[in-house]
Amino acid sequence: MYVDLGNALSSVASPGVSREALERLDDDVAAAHERIEAGRADADHGYAALNLPETADPDAIRTAVDRFDDPAAILTVGIGGSALGAATIADALESGVDSYVLDNVDPERVASLLGSLDLSATVVNAVSRSGTTAETLSNFLVVRDAMERAGVDWTERTFVTTGEEGPLRRLAEKHDLPALDVPAGVPGRFSALSTVGLASAAIRGHDIEAILDGARDEANRLSGSLFESPAYAYGAGAYALDQRGASVNAVMPYAESLETYAEWFAQLWAESLGKDGLGQTPARALGATDQHSQLQLYRAGPRDKMVTMVRAREREDRAIPETDLEGLSYLGGSSLGELLDAEFEATEASLAAAGRPSVRVELDRVDERGLGELLYGMEAACVLAGELYNVDTFVQPAVEWGKRAARGLLGGGRFEEAEAVAEKERLVIE
Amino acid sequence: MYVDLGNALSSVASPGVSREALERLDDDVAAAHERIEAGRADADHGYAALNLPETADPDAIRTAVDRFDDPAAILTVGIGGSALGAATIADALESGVDSYVLDNVDPERVASLLGSLDLSATVVNAVSRSGTTAETLSNFLVVRDAMERAGVDWTERTFVTTGEEGPLRRLAEKHDLPALDVPAGVPGRFSALSTVGLASAAIRGHDIEAILDGARDEANRLSGSLFESPAYAYGAGAYALDQRGASVNAVMPYAESLETYAEWFAQLWAESLGKDGLGQTPARALGATDQHSQLQLYRAGPRDKMVTMVRAREREDRAIPETDLEGLSYLGGSSLGELLDAEFEATEASLAAAGRPSVRVELDRVDERGLGELLYGMEAACVLAGELYNVDTFVQPAVEWGKRAARGLLGGGRFEEAEAVAEKERLVIE
Repeated sequence: MYVDLGNALSSVASPGVSREALERLDDDVAAAHERIEAGRADADHGYAALNLPETADPDAIRTAVDRFDDPAAILTVGIGGSALGAATIADALESGVDSYVLDNVDPERVASLLGSLDLSATVVNAVSRSGTTAETLSNFLVVRDAMERAGVDWTERTFVTTGEEGPLRRLAEKHDLPALDVPAGVPGRFSALSTVGLASAAIRGHDIEAILDGARDEANRLSGSLFESPAYAYGAGAYALDQRGASVNAVMPYAESLETYAEWFAQLWAESLGKDGLGQTPARALGATDQHSQLQLYRAGPRDKMVTMVRAREREDRAIPETDLEGLSYLGGSSLGELLDAEFEATEASLAAAGRPSVRVELDRVDERGLGELLYGMEAACVLAGELYNVDTFVQPAVEWGKRAARGLLGGGRFEEAEAVAEKERLVIE
Repeated sequence: MYVDLGNALSSVASPGVSREALERLDDDVAAAHERIEAGRADADHGYAALNLPETADPDAIRTAVDRFDDPAAILTVGIGGSALGAATIADALESGVDSYVLDNVDPERVASLLGSLDLSATVVNAVSRSGTTAETLSNFLVVRDAMERAGVDWTERTFVTTGEEGPLRRLAEKHDLPALDVPAGVPGRFSALSTVGLASAAIRGHDIEAILDGARDEANRLSGSLFESPAYAYGAGAYALDQRGASVNAVMPYAESLETYAEWFAQLWAESLGKDGLGQTPARALGATDQHSQLQLYRAGPRDKMVTMVRAREREDRAIPETDLEGLSYLGGSSLGELLDAEFEATEASLAAAGRPSVRVELDRVDERGLGELLYGMEAACVLAGELYNVDTFVQPAVEWGKRAARGLLGGGRFEEAEAVAEKERLVIE
């Protein structure tokens, strides 16, 4: 992973950060790195995620999924961190095995998906650390029922990824399903490089060792200085820009294959740093498409944004045919990749020309190794940023209120939060 | 469309707006409504979009596309406002005719799509008002070439949607292709209810009159008071919240079918209002999924957000099977739709409990009429907000710099912007 902070400097942009300020911040980075290393050494909650390049067990993953020979599709049933890692890897890497994710309880979407899937050739992975997540378990019950109705022996086509205890674990024991362990100390949004993200990749035939190799490379570059580690450069740069007013981080990959990555990043960043009134708001965008949508705002709206421009240096390309269409001859003989690169560089320069900060993140390729670098790098960036913000990076207490209220509304017990729902203030215009 | 501003009131949330402030703002709404009505009467640039329920010609659209009998798929080649309207309608409404959109110049995505499409059963719609948009024309040249290589007579499977002049218009004349007119005075992001958004809907068998009927209903409710028009209530409410610090508008539909709608809204809002240092930043989210991703930030991060909660009051539902899984019996006998509704109300209440503002937007159903109400309503809301911000809603000058730079980089002429690209400041960490 390569990180270029040039267009985030105060000589280019406002908000922007000076080289001197980055050098001063580097003292805090050194101290944060010490804490991170201590947390990793003790495998403390959350920090343990940064050890996954060493602790993940690719053989165990493959052994668990090898019994499913030649599936046409893998269906991951999970939500949030139990779904986004697998979805990010699946959408980035092509495979003959289709990947589907059920990460919402929209009945129309569920019906449409189940109506189109060949369940007899689909492997189902139910993912929930607690084994009690309402959305995931509801969807799993619906999927299992659909398999039975289709005459498929669901016990032959299902595995679970869960914690040591809970209903999913007991289900696996009862029906002798393969069961992968969600590793201890690894919050969902940091679990892409564990069983949670890698099982579906293994089923789809990807080289999961290479994903971990890329992650390990990035781990080896963590050091006490942001000037020596791309991950820390990104985390410290984003933090410094937020301090100076860039409260929105618009993540803009120039690759359709990384569109889901932007979603994954948005969860990582929002749920880890959004607390105590702090935290940068991630906004998802896609280049070049969103040049025709969000760029006007990014260049000419409030000075409250940084843009993270992500691309791969190499890719498969496709020539643009020569044309006699008037005024368009300059396109012919060029390629779609050259056009995409020109738009990337033009957009980056256009932000700089308007004095708006951007950070460039590059990979060699969107392949297993590159993904490992990117996912690990951004996790380490986020952990560093959490240290700099001085927040509790690995918890998400603010979502509990709504979970209790929803459970109460569904008759799953008495919760005072459910009673508050009825007291809603109304000002309805119709 | 129903809009509920109750949870945006200062009695509930901070930032929030008092009823008294809304009443004072209503004077500005009345004045803005006068300007909007005058603009509509003269069919002035941009304001003309609000006349589409009367000026769009469904018969002309159907006549143009009727020659394509029984296609398996429609492929829209466009970008930004030339793609998002059609994509929004297609992703909201099911049809036996598949819809694909090429709105990016990613060569890997283009290759993957062309490799999987049966081009002999696909209708191609090339959409560009000017007929010169680099991304769209490049993709069209690639698609046309692929059709020829596949032995498909492209002139039998292609139509164009374009302005009165330009390369696409001349191409249509030369090859006798059906050509739909992009209406004058309608900017791309306001064109969903014109030929640009409706042609693909017509090919997919949707009732485009019903879409326009829904839009007309919403148009008939525009009046000089935000308390009488759902569209103006939304536009004025969002403006008032932004004034008070809600610089981010997180749009969170609780329906997978409206996921693309959030993208459409993001373009409408960002490109129309993001100028002169003003404009609210749209952030796309999806309920219930993003409760497990963004909600922590929305409830506990900076007080710089409003959340727009969107749902349909009715939908197809699916029962959750009874289960003997321990602790989950409360789910059995309920339905996915009830769970989704409980999560909607729980999340809304959880934001209110944390003093964070939200606005509820509801439709009766996600069907043709409901979509017409929603798209028209949000366009009118945006036009009103533009009047209140006092910006030039219908232009997007900030994107021109990058277009010239990209063109220069590709050898399409000498542009000083292209030269600026080479002067990039660098601070690379690798």
